[in-house]
Amino acid sequence: MTFAATILTLYPEMFPGPLGVSLAGRARDRGDWRCETVQIRDFAPDKHRTVDDTPAGGGAGMVLKADVLATALDSVAGECPVLAMTPRGQPITQARIREIAAGPGVTLICGRFEGFDERFFEARPHIEQVSLADIVLSGGEPAALAILDACIRLLPGVMGAASSGHEESFEDGLLEYPQYTRPFEWEGRTIPEVLRSGDHARIAAWRKAQAENDTRLRRPDLWERQGGAPVQPASGARHEKKD
Amino acid sequence: MTFAATILTLYPEMFPGPLGVSLAGRARDRGDWRCETVQIRDFAPDKHRTVDDTPAGGGAGMVLKADVLATALDSVAGECPVLAMTPRGQPITQARIREIAAGPGVTLICGRFEGFDERFFEARPHIEQVSLADIVLSGGEPAALAILDACIRLLPGVMGAASSGHEESFEDGLLEYPQYTRPFEWEGRTIPEVLRSGDHARIAAWRKAQAENDTRLRRPDLWERQGGAPVQPASGARHEKKD
Repeated sequence: MTFAATILTLYPEMFPGPLGVSLAGRARDRGDWRCETVQIRDFAPDKHRTVDDTPAGGGAGMVLKADVLATALDSVAGECPVLAMTPRGQPITQARIREIAAGPGVTLICGRFEGFDERFFEARPHIEQVSLADIVLSGGEPAALAILDACIRLLPGVMGAASSGHEESFEDGLLEYPQYTRPFEWEGRTIPEVLRSGDHARIAAWRKAQAENDTRLRRPDLWERQGGAPVQPASGARHEKKD
Repeated sequence: MTFAATILTLYPEMFPGPLGVSLAGRARDRGDWRCETVQIRDFAPDKHRTVDDTPAGGGAGMVLKADVLATALDSVAGECPVLAMTPRGQPITQARIREIAAGPGVTLICGRFEGFDERFFEARPHIEQVSLADIVLSGGEPAALAILDACIRLLPGVMGAASSGHEESFEDGLLEYPQYTRPFEWEGRTIPEVLRSGDHARIAAWRKAQAENDTRLRRPDLWERQGGAPVQPASGARHEKKD
């Protein structure tokens, strides 16, 4: 089955972009996924193809028109989840990515300018408002590319036998344990001895302890969310930055 | 001054990608920023140009070698912040984006496979380990594109007079207020009356109340972080999903 991604955007030329090469590109060549873009501007009813207008109540920037957005979205058939990229949305999670990747496809709506007319979401309540990160992008396209990339790598056969995808950061609510590889010694630093012991039970226990410890220190928010004991705020622990 | 982005990657062809068009593309054409890629593979010492090896202690996937990464990074001169894209890192924030955009440039390190040999970070402690979102990508490249996009839009002159960039989601610890634009009535839904009042003080007060209320309901984590009263968990409030 081909996972069908549909992107509503004012910049169709941004897709597949970075997803046209490497892992995602090879998967696309095999037919594991396909990407169709819908130019929002094609659904503007006037001869100037207007997609935006000034904010009601004043303010800088332009707001995407609800009528144009709704006509563009209504033109897309299908039962796929519909996600709009907006900093006002819920943070995307790996659990939601996994659900989407298990389905037939996804529709991603990319805004630009000052955002969407809120009535678009009121009138089309099946749209999930999704935020990639607590940073402000110039538009939804970079967020859509990241979310699509996260979905594609989970499609059957894409990662192959190389990785199950289940022993990674966020999959069990923890950060992944630290990794090491050859050479054994580099710049005076050696690979932890336990990893060379060949004792699989000891290695698994060490990795679990490392993952828990790193999650507690680096991401107390994740740690507490998955039921870990509350972390005492230590100076600099939350925003650890090495100088 | 030209903001200088340097990207360490195994896929230089992914850049500038989506940042070659629209706002970021025009800014690049004007010389507001430039993008130089460094092919990590060029720094492998062996004739097979090996960049990765199997994880010490076993497990799926491949780990990027510390020696190759360090040689590649050491080849990049300059005083710019160095960010490595990894799900084990600290979540990127708009405050950090603003700091980086105010500087001369940034170096972004993109991994692939199962991640970096941890000794790379131990031996080069000036590297900031940064996570874009709590999702797993096929590599660091989509994250680097999003972070770079967020920086570029803040460079002097890029957004022009269209927006100050200071009245947006996350800039004051709150989500942005909802936006509306013409037509006044659409599908039976009207623009809130206050926005048509012309009373600037009333509009500002309404928008502030909306931003606070939406942040409290949609993002209790942001709300509490910026000093708001703790939000009582309500069923579905945290992972609001409209069906």
